[in-house]
Amino acid sequence: MEKLTIIKVGGKIVEEPGSLEALLTRFATIDGHKLLVHGGGRSATRLAERLGVEQRMVGGRRITDADTLRIVTMVYGGLVNKQIVAALQARGINALGLTGADMNVMRSRKRPVAEVDYGYVGDVESVDAGLLSDLIARDVVPILAPLTHDGQGSMLNTNADTIAGEAAKALAGYFDVTLVYCFEKKGVLRDENDDESVIVAIDSAEMPRLVADGIVSGGMLPKLENAFAAIAAGVKRVVITRADAIDNKDAGTVLTA
Amino acid sequence: MEKLTIIKVGGKIVEEPGSLEALLTRFATIDGHKLLVHGGGRSATRLAERLGVEQRMVGGRRITDADTLRIVTMVYGGLVNKQIVAALQARGINALGLTGADMNVMRSRKRPVAEVDYGYVGDVESVDAGLLSDLIARDVVPILAPLTHDGQGSMLNTNADTIAGEAAKALAGYFDVTLVYCFEKKGVLRDENDDESVIVAIDSAEMPRLVADGIVSGGMLPKLENAFAAIAAGVKRVVITRADAIDNKDAGTVLTA
Repeated sequence: MEKLTIIKVGGKIVEEPGSLEALLTRFATIDGHKLLVHGGGRSATRLAERLGVEQRMVGGRRITDADTLRIVTMVYGGLVNKQIVAALQARGINALGLTGADMNVMRSRKRPVAEVDYGYVGDVESVDAGLLSDLIARDVVPILAPLTHDGQGSMLNTNADTIAGEAAKALAGYFDVTLVYCFEKKGVLRDENDDESVIVAIDSAEMPRLVADGIVSGGMLPKLENAFAAIAAGVKRVVITRADAIDNKDAGTVLTA
Repeated sequence: MEKLTIIKVGGKIVEEPGSLEALLTRFATIDGHKLLVHGGGRSATRLAERLGVEQRMVGGRRITDADTLRIVTMVYGGLVNKQIVAALQARGINALGLTGADMNVMRSRKRPVAEVDYGYVGDVESVDAGLLSDLIARDVVPILAPLTHDGQGSMLNTNADTIAGEAAKALAGYFDVTLVYCFEKKGVLRDENDDESVIVAIDSAEMPRLVADGIVSGGMLPKLENAFAAIAAGVKRVVITRADAIDNKDAGTVLTA
């Protein structure tokens, strides 16, 4: 199987010209097939402010009303996605910007209203990786925006970490997949106050002990649980690292079965 | 050769939910391979107004400064394009939204400053139809936004009629191409005051007489000249019709060699 590296980068790194250019230069040097999943939340918030569309976040998730759906469709699917595509084409990378609606790559279901009505937010239901995997094999580099569609004509706002995880699982049937989550720290830290205390490798057998010892806790716990779920579904390895180290094979924390 | 129908629709028809839905329902019924090129100028103007970004038009063309480029990238590449893609997916059409940057489909050169500085406006230099034609042959329906890239990292605003014509010429090497330009009239009229006086067919030998007789004049003249240039480059036929007749093979004016 050929190798495929899937990189998920969010946060301000993709939204400031200087850091985006540096990231894309690093991304372009990664050997073999690759795919990028990006965010764009800060730009969406900024546009919403300029348009006077009030934004509400619950647990870090954006409540997506109809106006906000238009904003994220413009910002994620248009502005951020096409800036990345054009910048990669300039680096000789044959980038193709996609949302989940394009080629029906990722279909989702509007999240049912429970305690919170998230509005036009989608939970992924199916991934069609057939044409996508063919394009990747032909050296196309997909750039996925954090948007899906419901199969009934509506776009839906979808968490970029989820998009990356679902794409990795679906493409694991076609490639030897490494999924890289970029993070503000250098990796999973043994001591949260020591940025150099990166745990270089964790396998699924070690996870329960790290949780019991309180080394993996807080926001890192669901991240690692999702990572090991992806590994259980066929993804070869998940790497948690900083965006400025995506081209360094020895950086970050490597999770494997 | 398999048939490919390329439809170019601009104006308010793609920007009002009711007329867009009707158009896409008609588009979905067209037999065989198809491709849609859309505009989005009214939505771009509306967003620019809300953002307080002044718009200047010269000869019907938008002066595209840096702020306006961001607006058209959001509106054409994000909002309008993805609404169309999601709506077609709901109709069982495997739509794929593209700008010229995606898969390097259409590269252009920033228009040189002459009498007018159009800003970030691109004149098409090259079309890469290889992967595009493969996807079309596999029943993917490309939805092209009126945006290209310069190969150096910038998107460029590009006239949708030009995008349609260039796509048609490049794809004529792979398919039997019919290019349909939607227009507010039923076709080329023998008498501009009589909406029913549609000339059903014009071939290139008849053009000089129609021009000499003053039947083809004004804005229709460059349209037909471009159409016959596409035909000279291998496009089988160009149809000028109304958007509500794109599914009617007998409507409009058919131009052939």
